[in-house]
This record gives sequence, C-alpha cells and structure tokens, in this order.
Amino acid sequence: MPANSSLYAYLHGQFTPLDRAFLHVSDLAVQRGYGVFDFFKVHAGQPLFLEAYLDRFYRSAQLLELAVPLARPALRAVIEELIERNRLPLSGVKLLLTGGYSANGYEPGAPNLVVTEQPLALPTPAQVAAGIRLITYDYVRELPAAKSINYVTGIRLLQQLKARGAGEVLYHHQGVITESPRANFFIVKHDHTVVTPATDVLAGITRQNLLSLPESPYRLTEGLVTLAEVYQAKEAFLTSTTKRVLPVVQIDDVVLGTGQPGPVTRALLQALLGLEAHQSRPAAAPVG
Amino acid sequence: MPANSSLYAYLHGQFTPLDRAFLHVSDLAVQRGYGVFDFFKVHAGQPLFLEAYLDRFYRSAQLLELAVPLARPALRAVIEELIERNRLPLSGVKLLLTGGYSANGYEPGAPNLVVTEQPLALPTPAQVAAGIRLITYDYVRELPAAKSINYVTGIRLLQQLKARGAGEVLYHHQGVITESPRANFFIVKHDHTVVTPATDVLAGITRQNLLSLPESPYRLTEGLVTLAEVYQAKEAFLTSTTKRVLPVVQIDDVVLGTGQPGPVTRALLQALLGLEAHQSRPAAAPVG
Repeated sequence: MPANSSLYAYLHGQFTPLDRAFLHVSDLAVQRGYGVFDFFKVHAGQPLFLEAYLDRFYRSAQLLELAVPLARPALRAVIEELIERNRLPLSGVKLLLTGGYSANGYEPGAPNLVVTEQPLALPTPAQVAAGIRLITYDYVRELPAAKSINYVTGIRLLQQLKARGAGEVLYHHQGVITESPRANFFIVKHDHTVVTPATDVLAGITRQNLLSLPESPYRLTEGLVTLAEVYQAKEAFLTSTTKRVLPVVQIDDVVLGTGQPGPVTRALLQALLGLEAHQSRPAAAPVG
Repeated sequence: MPANSSLYAYLHGQFTPLDRAFLHVSDLAVQRGYGVFDFFKVHAGQPLFLEAYLDRFYRSAQLLELAVPLARPALRAVIEELIERNRLPLSGVKLLLTGGYSANGYEPGAPNLVVTEQPLALPTPAQVAAGIRLITYDYVRELPAAKSINYVTGIRLLQQLKARGAGEVLYHHQGVITESPRANFFIVKHDHTVVTPATDVLAGITRQNLLSLPESPYRLTEGLVTLAEVYQAKEAFLTSTTKRVLPVVQIDDVVLGTGQPGPVTRALLQALLGLEAHQSRPAAAPVG
C-alpha cells in the first residue's frame, strides 16, 4: 500500500484514511478507464483558483455524461474539511469521478467520487534554471476538452522519454502542436509575441491565468502553432498546476534560443507567482 | 456492491470472494486508465481457445510495457483453480492487468493482476434472428493492437445509441471502417466474398477463428472496407467472444439487404458453433 497513513481521503460519502481508500474492481475506471478528474494546489490551507477548477471538473463530468454526486457547495465543504483534517503546508487536492460500479462491466453505474490530498513538490529554483527537454509525438487526445483519466499514450512513452533524456512529451498532429500530456505549451516568437495552441487542448487553468494577466508587457494569444515554428522559437515553456511556468530548453534534437530559460519565460513565471500570492492568504513560497 | 457473493476472484496473489475484490485508489487504472485485459468463454469448465487469448493478453501487456506477474503456466493454473472453485455452467473469465499502485499517480508500480469469472449470457436465438443496428462514428482506437481498458468513446456514446435505437457503434476514420468498440466487423459483398478490415483493429480471436476456418464455402479475407461499401453490403455481422457471429441488419439509416440475417452470416455462425463444440469437451449449447 502506498500513501501517508496519517492522511484522510473522501470516498463513498465519508472521510476515511487514505490507505484504506479502495474501489471494487467492478468500478468502470478499473474495467474501462472511464472517469474524469481535476487537481488543484493548496497553499497553507487555501485552495488556489478553486472556482476555475470546479468549473472544469463539472464540465468534464458532463462531457462524459457522469453526474457529480455532490452539488458545488457540498463539494466545496468536503474539500474544506479534507484540508482541515490533513493540515498539509503545501498540497495537491485531486477530485476523481469514475463511471461507478458497473453491473455488466460496460454501462456506468452511480459514479464514485474520490477526493484525495497529498503533499506537493513544486519545481525548485534549480529545476526552473535547468529547464526541461521535450520530445514530440503525433497524437491527439480523445475528447481534449475533458480532463478524462485516459493517459495511455503519455504513460506508455515514459520509458522512451527516459532513454532519450527528455522530461516530457509534446503532442502534435501532422505538424500542428497541441499540448503535453499534463501541461499546456507556449512559444515565444522572435517578435516577443507569446502563442499557445488554440484547439484540441485541455483548457488549462494556469494557461488561462497567463492569457488573462491583467498587466502583461507581452502579447499572449491563442493560435496555430506548428512544429516548424517550435523549432525556430526564441523561448518555449510548459504551464500546469504543478509545473507553473516551466522553461523548455530543448525539443527533440533542437536547442531553443540560448539553451537557457529566457527573459520572457522568467517574467511570466514571476507574474504567475504574483497571481498565486494574491490568492493565498499567507504569501506563496517564492520560486525561480 | 455488485457481484454474486458466492463467486471467487484472484487478486493480490490469492483467491478472495469477488465482492471483496478491491484495488486501492492509487492504482494506475483508477488514476490514469492504464491497464490491459482479456476475456474468454468457459463452457462446462472448459475454456475455449484459451491459448489464443493468453497470447493476446501477454502481447497487450507488452505493448503497454507492463510485466504480467505470473508466467503462463502459473496463470493457467490460477484460471483452472478459479473455474474449479466457481463451478459455473457458462461463464466469462476476465484477465485484467493494471499499471499497479503508483507512488506519484503517473508512473507505473508493480502491476496488479485481477482474474474474475462471471456468468455469461450469449445471444439467444431470438436476438440472432433480430440482428443488431449500428451507428457509425469517426474514431480510431489508440494503439488498436492492444486490448487496453480505454473505452471512453464507446461508453460516452451509449446514451446516443439508446436515443437512436441502435445496439452498437461502428468506428470508421474518414470513411475507412475499422471495428466496433467490443467486436470486429465483417461485410458480405454481392459476389459472396466476406471481408473484414485489415488494419487499426484489435486482433479478435473470433475474427481469426472465422478467417482460419478449415472448410469454408466462402472466401473470407482481410482488406480495406469503406463506409460506401458497407451501405451497399448484402450482409454484415459483428464477431466477438460474447456476440459470436451477430447479424447486422441496419447501419445508420440504411437497411442492409433484406433487413434480415442473411444465409452467409447464418452459415458462419454455424461454423463457429462447430469450432466451439470441438473445443468444449461437453457439447456447446446450440444457438441461432
């Protein structure tokens, strides 16, 4: 059994020690990989951008025709109690909704809602300074708008990533870039415009936070991004809840720009940290 | 909890009542839909075509870089003991291999092997006589050669199927037919040749049994099958372990042939039943 035994989870309508959080094998996540989830950060007891994550969670559930068994105020109360019970200084909370216990192994039953919380490690200053290398792979996620639990392709490629010294995959389809398995992707062009793929991507909350920055010195837009443009980019970075703004320094065999995190990427990370600090009642830990 | 409480399952290296067969929520099937499975019929204690199913199960595991924790003779012994304990007259045995308990919710741990057995209902003569209606949908399964647990698209379409009075989906990509979510697909052309899509399909055992029929009055081949050909077909049918050879009588709004199961389909069902009876020591129940 994994997991810190002092932590609680929420499952089957009640709080239970995480190490005793089990689902029957008839659950449609186990039988057919059928479920959706979401994941947000909690700093010193305070969830960051919670409403945006809840919006997306309910939207994903609807796209898979699954009813969330708790209305939003009740789900918010569960999250609050879980945070209160676990008292972690910095954590990630995962909301998981499965197709439920299926009588015939194919048709959904009453969805199972599982809420877990675990300590979170954010990129260290050294990791931000080193940046990340990506390898490209032709694949479009099924139903990209939904945060479904299907990560078959991303996980199957882990050994290839290791063998090639890369940290993550960048998906494209016939040369048109979409996203990484667990992050959105941006490039900084030579005119300093910052572009992220517009279609066939998950609506990342960090991505949206950057696109909506109230005072940005750079023009951030959604648009078409091709593989050719990526190789020519001045800078590139990933965004996600756990990666924040993570510089990309190499894609396939192409070193980007100087091979070091660039000034636009670093400025946008600082802007995101400012937003996060504004959400956290106690100031968020500085990084980078 | 679902499931017949008198049945056993095999899980975590031991036999356990099926209603107590649980996986921790950290399992990578639950977290990321990562796993493979296989499923075969057991008639009166005798698994049918077992070696072909085991071949495919180990191949699927390899395609997802998962090690089956039991070598083939040990897995065969588990299956035999499970059948002996449960003593079902007609059943399906499911072999399921997940990415295991994951420390970080993404990287595979030691795979969990779950073997379950449940009573099976095969198509009744009335169901065979009525045939099935399909609706078409543009989608290619990810990694079609592996029997992964990912059925997001097939399950998400269930409500649409119901609304349109159809029994199953038929996948195509840009007009080229592949398969159904849980069955292979064949058409009978007007020259009485019988064709099943050659590529981007699961290597169905029933499909292969038909293609390898020792004495067939019909020419069965793998090849390209287009949506246009499907609408023009004289007959069509699905094949799977549980569906055997199931006549398709309508696709989208197009009634095939006479709208009744045709003679080629019926003859091939009889041929399959003959093969099954040959595998079963006691004779298989006749159908159709």
